[in-house]
Amino acid sequence: MKTRIISGCVMLPLLVVVYLGGWWLMAAAFLVGIIGLHEFCKGFEASETVPCKPLGYAAAVLLYGLNALFTDDYRFVMFWVTVVVMASMIYGFDVEKRKLEDMTATLLGILYTVFLSYHIVLIDQSPFRQLIWLVFLAAFGTDIMAYFTGMAIGKHKLCPHLSPKKSIEGAVGGVIGSVVFCVLFGHFFAPDFKVLCLIIGFFGSIVSQLGDLSASAFKRQMGIKDYGNLIPGHGGILDRFDSVLFTAPVVFYCIEFLA
Amino acid sequence: MKTRIISGCVMLPLLVVVYLGGWWLMAAAFLVGIIGLHEFCKGFEASETVPCKPLGYAAAVLLYGLNALFTDDYRFVMFWVTVVVMASMIYGFDVEKRKLEDMTATLLGILYTVFLSYHIVLIDQSPFRQLIWLVFLAAFGTDIMAYFTGMAIGKHKLCPHLSPKKSIEGAVGGVIGSVVFCVLFGHFFAPDFKVLCLIIGFFGSIVSQLGDLSASAFKRQMGIKDYGNLIPGHGGILDRFDSVLFTAPVVFYCIEFLA
Repeated sequence: MKTRIISGCVMLPLLVVVYLGGWWLMAAAFLVGIIGLHEFCKGFEASETVPCKPLGYAAAVLLYGLNALFTDDYRFVMFWVTVVVMASMIYGFDVEKRKLEDMTATLLGILYTVFLSYHIVLIDQSPFRQLIWLVFLAAFGTDIMAYFTGMAIGKHKLCPHLSPKKSIEGAVGGVIGSVVFCVLFGHFFAPDFKVLCLIIGFFGSIVSQLGDLSASAFKRQMGIKDYGNLIPGHGGILDRFDSVLFTAPVVFYCIEFLA
Repeated sequence: MKTRIISGCVMLPLLVVVYLGGWWLMAAAFLVGIIGLHEFCKGFEASETVPCKPLGYAAAVLLYGLNALFTDDYRFVMFWVTVVVMASMIYGFDVEKRKLEDMTATLLGILYTVFLSYHIVLIDQSPFRQLIWLVFLAAFGTDIMAYFTGMAIGKHKLCPHLSPKKSIEGAVGGVIGSVVFCVLFGHFFAPDFKVLCLIIGFFGSIVSQLGDLSASAFKRQMGIKDYGNLIPGHGGILDRFDSVLFTAPVVFYCIEFLA
């Protein structure tokens, strides 16, 4: 509970950045990608896998550089993915020093943190940028409502091996909460897109919870409790943004294909 | 030498498929992706990493399905990459059974085999489909010319740890050979794109050799000699197509951004 309130306060500057959009939001998404990558790589290092951090940072700079030069040309994103795949493989040339995991972890680390968070920028650049709020409404709305619903009526465990405190009731409450938040947002701020807001609220919430559980699964395997200590006592960037990383693409592709 | 001649004969049907293009080439690229994925996963299994093969096959079907439905809409490729990243992470939910490597290897396996080989289809669908021959001229031209140059004047080892037989002289000969082949192709079959053919011949050859060395690095780490045994005594699909997987994207992006 305390974690949630404190995190909430820490999230306030985020609201300002999302409201401002443009370069501010791009800088924020870039930072989330870079710091997230750093934390994710540190997690891997705890399990004796050594992803190539410099390659990850270079990849982030390349992606945002290409984005600045060629807005809205998605071929450059494909090109970037290809470069990252090849570079991660070439990282393994030093066969005496590298292990298979070092290469594969480099690729997943970059795509998970840098590529997924980049979707925030893509939404901001789309003609429907006001819908960017749905990323956070779906992610944090799910989180908060799942917590309260689980506290109130949670009985059946969702996946005890992975996250012992989560209940099926909480998960359902999270989905309902997310849908309600997103539909209310649509009603007041995007009346032309009410159905889209409902769809995003529904799928965004499910994927948000998958993002949360994925982060738990990785932390478990890495043998760490939190990804970082950016907010003392309350985890790192990835601990706060694990669900946002998954909802941002949902919002972007829903906008692109359904709006 | 014998390997190269026999492989050359096996490659003849490939020429027909490339010439026909369309569905034939798409089926061939799909098969290279699927069989390549199978071989790559088997390699990982030799080192006790277990990527999710069914997920890989499903990803391949999804990519080619999306391609058939939405030709030339690259947003679907980005969407696909996102789905593959998330699905590879969700594969780890069964924390008792899965290791970190299983998830990361799944992602790299799919992107390496299915995504890179898919660029052959993308070239075939582009307005400059006749340039698809450059993929094979650069890859096999490099291979053959590097071999003969290395045999004739090879003295300085290229990277003894990784591939003891390769020489710097061979690598340079490969690049020159590839450039000559590609420029000759341009001269006779694509006179409007001579400079582009030269650029592709140059970069395609370098990247082709990186693809070859990457495959060697992975096989070393996996503790296997060949990826497969499709052509008895002469390796699997990935052993023959390791450089093509890397040159196909080079040709595609050169066409997209420079033609």
